[in-house]
Amino acid sequence: MTAAMTPAFIGIDWGTTNRRAMLLDANGALLDTRRDDQGSLACRGRFRPALEGLLQAWPAAAHVPVVMSGMVGSALGWQEVPYLDAEVPLDRLPQHLVPVADAPAAARWFITPGLRWLGAHGRADVMRGEETQILGARHLLGPLADGWLVLPGTHSKWVRLQGGVVSVLRTYLTGELFAQLAERGTLAPLMSDDSPVDMAASFMAGVQALRGEELSHALFGARARVMGGGAPAAGTAHYVSGLLIAAEWRDALRDAAELPPAAVVRVIGEPALAERHALCAAHFGRRTESLDPQAVQQAAWRALSSAFQTP
Amino acid sequence: MTAAMTPAFIGIDWGTTNRRAMLLDANGALLDTRRDDQGSLACRGRFRPALEGLLQAWPAAAHVPVVMSGMVGSALGWQEVPYLDAEVPLDRLPQHLVPVADAPAAARWFITPGLRWLGAHGRADVMRGEETQILGARHLLGPLADGWLVLPGTHSKWVRLQGGVVSVLRTYLTGELFAQLAERGTLAPLMSDDSPVDMAASFMAGVQALRGEELSHALFGARARVMGGGAPAAGTAHYVSGLLIAAEWRDALRDAAELPPAAVVRVIGEPALAERHALCAAHFGRRTESLDPQAVQQAAWRALSSAFQTP
Repeated sequence: MTAAMTPAFIGIDWGTTNRRAMLLDANGALLDTRRDDQGSLACRGRFRPALEGLLQAWPAAAHVPVVMSGMVGSALGWQEVPYLDAEVPLDRLPQHLVPVADAPAAARWFITPGLRWLGAHGRADVMRGEETQILGARHLLGPLADGWLVLPGTHSKWVRLQGGVVSVLRTYLTGELFAQLAERGTLAPLMSDDSPVDMAASFMAGVQALRGEELSHALFGARARVMGGGAPAAGTAHYVSGLLIAAEWRDALRDAAELPPAAVVRVIGEPALAERHALCAAHFGRRTESLDPQAVQQAAWRALSSAFQTP
Repeated sequence: MTAAMTPAFIGIDWGTTNRRAMLLDANGALLDTRRDDQGSLACRGRFRPALEGLLQAWPAAAHVPVVMSGMVGSALGWQEVPYLDAEVPLDRLPQHLVPVADAPAAARWFITPGLRWLGAHGRADVMRGEETQILGARHLLGPLADGWLVLPGTHSKWVRLQGGVVSVLRTYLTGELFAQLAERGTLAPLMSDDSPVDMAASFMAGVQALRGEELSHALFGARARVMGGGAPAAGTAHYVSGLLIAAEWRDALRDAAELPPAAVVRVIGEPALAERHALCAAHFGRRTESLDPQAVQQAAWRALSSAFQTP
């Protein structure tokens, strides 16, 4: 048996709701993946059996290093791992893995630290899990990864990478606001209208509607345009999505020098979200480039597995 | 029995959640008030018995005119009453009352129309109920009511009154966003921390934190400042309130000519909300003046009762 095809490393992106595991060989090739709904919230108080259950699927990998990223390292996770300061170059992440205290003696189980960014005027921002994906992008693209990266989702992250260091981090509550507004309150009945609709047109109507005004006003406008302006209710969910994603872009473009027209914004996310960012970018005279989230995650684990290579 | 002290008019502010009724004599003096939780949501399908139940409390007023404002006139209310265009001077509101179709033959039951405002670029905004309060402010203050009025709450309304006409209307989802964020999601655990705290200081920290950035980013910051910045969790609810209310003021101040430093913004709302707006105004070098919501509502009903005066 050679290094190729022999299980050598397990990486687990262990978020709030889901868990995605990858099994790699010593060359970083992907041998298998597993995905389940055993997120941090579901596993409270029983993280060790939850991990052991996952490992049973891969008996040949019983003793390989396991590295976990995401909310598993938060106060609501398995073990709270202090944030790493964003000034630390991402390439140093493998040196900052934290051993799991509640592990069997022979096990090599680790959690990646999240990243804490501090800005002017006492501003702070944090991430847990995305730092690993950004490391993956850096390993895929090398120095070309420098620039803006967007990781859309419940908490959409905008990251500026300079020389492999996260120099700006801005998180938006985009996905969470969307989900809350869709579920209850004034906009929910309109957002649940599922008549057939042109997704892109409805989304772009939201993008275009966000001019100078505040988001909290524009969101009410998603109702007012129907009640008072005669717009159809169908497509309101896409319209709201357009408002929320356009707000991210408006923020990024406040300082035009930070995001010149020639800049390319790299999006690491599901195709549907990446497409929305591409539409929005075009509206603002910019362009995006999509990175496959699976390839990025695999590259991240490959980079982190290097911490365990015996020369 | 003289006109004074004789019941002559009933006005009901019939909102989504609550119902507030006032009984006036022919001079507009307040004889009695009632408040209950029989809002539009609770009364669906049984508005007529719900009104009749209320009227039983005032047998001497069995045949006086009843005017209702608010969500009772919406598609989710008793009878959908078309919006009046904001170009119509508010003083004409008494001429636009709409009779309730589902009323006994002898009854004089009416619903006030809401107001629809249309702006440039297809923008629309609407109100139901607040138009009546603004009419009240106009009757209390006369031409001095011209200028900016704020009616804070679930849907915070900013209204510019010019010559008795609503020339600008902007609604913010402030109270609704606050309630949703406090109940579930990322910020909820922090917002429910009820350790003793200096309300004004926590609120002002939120006001000051909202610099140029988007609200959806600043809201995540309410968590990041605790997780990454070392700020205490206590006071997070006031901090979030500060962000949301400051966003309204930032929007109003985008065009400084619209709200010059000498301008006074009149706030019609509960004392606790009026105080928050006063703090926020001071931060932006402006000032507010509070109008008592009860006095405003009574003035509104007095103005509307004039439609029924026999000369």
